[in-house]
Amino acid sequence: MSSAILKRTGQKMPLVGFGLWKVTRSTCADTVYNAIKAGYRLFDGAGDYGNEKEAGEGVRRALKDGLVKRNELCNHHLWNTYHAREHVKKLAKLQLDLWGIEQFDLFLIHFPVSLEYVDPNHRYPPEWFGDDGKVHLGKIPMQETWQAMEELVDEGIAKNIGLSNCQGSIILDVMRYARYEPQVLQIEHHPYLTQQPLVDLAKLLNIALTAYSSFGSQSYLELGFKKDVTNLLEHNVVTSIAQARKKTVAQVLLRWATQRGIAVIPKTNNEGRLVENLQCDTFDLSESEIKKISDLNNGLRFNNPFEIDPRLAIFA
Amino acid sequence: MSSAILKRTGQKMPLVGFGLWKVTRSTCADTVYNAIKAGYRLFDGAGDYGNEKEAGEGVRRALKDGLVKRNELCNHHLWNTYHAREHVKKLAKLQLDLWGIEQFDLFLIHFPVSLEYVDPNHRYPPEWFGDDGKVHLGKIPMQETWQAMEELVDEGIAKNIGLSNCQGSIILDVMRYARYEPQVLQIEHHPYLTQQPLVDLAKLLNIALTAYSSFGSQSYLELGFKKDVTNLLEHNVVTSIAQARKKTVAQVLLRWATQRGIAVIPKTNNEGRLVENLQCDTFDLSESEIKKISDLNNGLRFNNPFEIDPRLAIFA
Repeated sequence: MSSAILKRTGQKMPLVGFGLWKVTRSTCADTVYNAIKAGYRLFDGAGDYGNEKEAGEGVRRALKDGLVKRNELCNHHLWNTYHAREHVKKLAKLQLDLWGIEQFDLFLIHFPVSLEYVDPNHRYPPEWFGDDGKVHLGKIPMQETWQAMEELVDEGIAKNIGLSNCQGSIILDVMRYARYEPQVLQIEHHPYLTQQPLVDLAKLLNIALTAYSSFGSQSYLELGFKKDVTNLLEHNVVTSIAQARKKTVAQVLLRWATQRGIAVIPKTNNEGRLVENLQCDTFDLSESEIKKISDLNNGLRFNNPFEIDPRLAIFA
Repeated sequence: MSSAILKRTGQKMPLVGFGLWKVTRSTCADTVYNAIKAGYRLFDGAGDYGNEKEAGEGVRRALKDGLVKRNELCNHHLWNTYHAREHVKKLAKLQLDLWGIEQFDLFLIHFPVSLEYVDPNHRYPPEWFGDDGKVHLGKIPMQETWQAMEELVDEGIAKNIGLSNCQGSIILDVMRYARYEPQVLQIEHHPYLTQQPLVDLAKLLNIALTAYSSFGSQSYLELGFKKDVTNLLEHNVVTSIAQARKKTVAQVLLRWATQRGIAVIPKTNNEGRLVENLQCDTFDLSESEIKKISDLNNGLRFNNPFEIDPRLAIFA
């Protein structure tokens, strides 16, 4: 399988992984087990997804059954409420316990957002809101959080560290104070939001890219968000290429990203699609097909914390 | 004249100021003198504009002739090469000397970019390049620079401090570690680049906004940059409103910004236009006229350091 090389550690990151966001909790262990069996070696998890323990069960069962020696790259996110130096390690360890593993291969800052600390014994995952249903901003600068992330590397808790949902100016600031530069940047990326300048910057800085929401609005429709836009899975530019190639629309969307050098982490609760998605790099799109899909870009972003609270306008 | 209130100090900032970028050095002292005589009280200067000493001469002459007691708000920029704690104060003092004044009413970080230090005795202003014609990145985090800016306030060197060319995520990070929150944000702003999310964020954070390049491409055409776009000063949407209102096109573009609550700092080397620009707030555009102009927005940015060096992609 194609992979990206993480520059500092030389570790390989598969270009096709499995996203755990919105994977049903009751079937999550089986889904993860089946995904490992199918060949997935990159899993994208986060406290905020609410299924860490179950995902870990799937991983441990696969390890026990000898399907893999060890999950080769488990991608994980640090949530906004744990940006303080003392909370970063505490939560990373708690999350390792939930997964039942000893080290994260990749640990990412989920958002360049600091929220007030919520004790995991009180509520976990805490999501965006306090007990009063309001957003409470924290005061932890990114520099403190990044330095705490670096300590996770020093102590072997994380092998690689990275960023998510960050734009140019904050990435460039992290580069100035980093002892360990970010290895990965995870961003919303689909044909409606190609983010070419950011993609170019990450490549220039030797930061590997991972796309989330590769199918665009699909994830958000499931959450009840509606935007007045054609579903990418039904967009004639993409469906016509899929028909011509005898591939699924999902495979075309994933391959479009991986040919742009960007790893993908599609989620599915369906076992057949799980295999199909993994096989998305068994064919190549032509340059003109890639361009046709990229030309759908209109800057449409589905995951913007601004919509939760205007003080979270990290993409403004 | 209309003004914005700077929240922390309660100081007023006029909504129409005078920009010194590209003001001809040989006539700069006269231009500044005439601008003060015409009623300008906000001047936007920077080391990088290369005319500080001459601008200061104009100010001092006006003070001597009793046109003003003291320039009421002199807006100034800290250049990228001086982001280190020890250089911020050194340069602010050097710039005060060049202007011949004791305090900056407003001092801004010019770009969220750190470049290698260049001794002012060696070359001033240093602009973007080293002696070898290449861009040399510095390693000074924004937090260090902002803290040094705060010390300028503590020591009375600057009354207010602020940011320029910053986007959401880096502004929100500054807000986390600021002892003194930014009072002003200066951004490229014209009908092709309305930056509504950033404008909304600044207002929410009580940060006053100043627009540069209010006439769009005009400044850049003079520098020989060409973009395939209609000059805003000749755009029929704007010219037709100007004709109907019996105002100059420049006045319409400036009033459009000030009615959006954004201060402007037009530059001109022409004495008549200098007065016209200052009088841009003597009429009101209708809401539908404002909307027609805002609808020209297409995200076109003229001043992007990325075009100097791709490692400077602060807007990616």
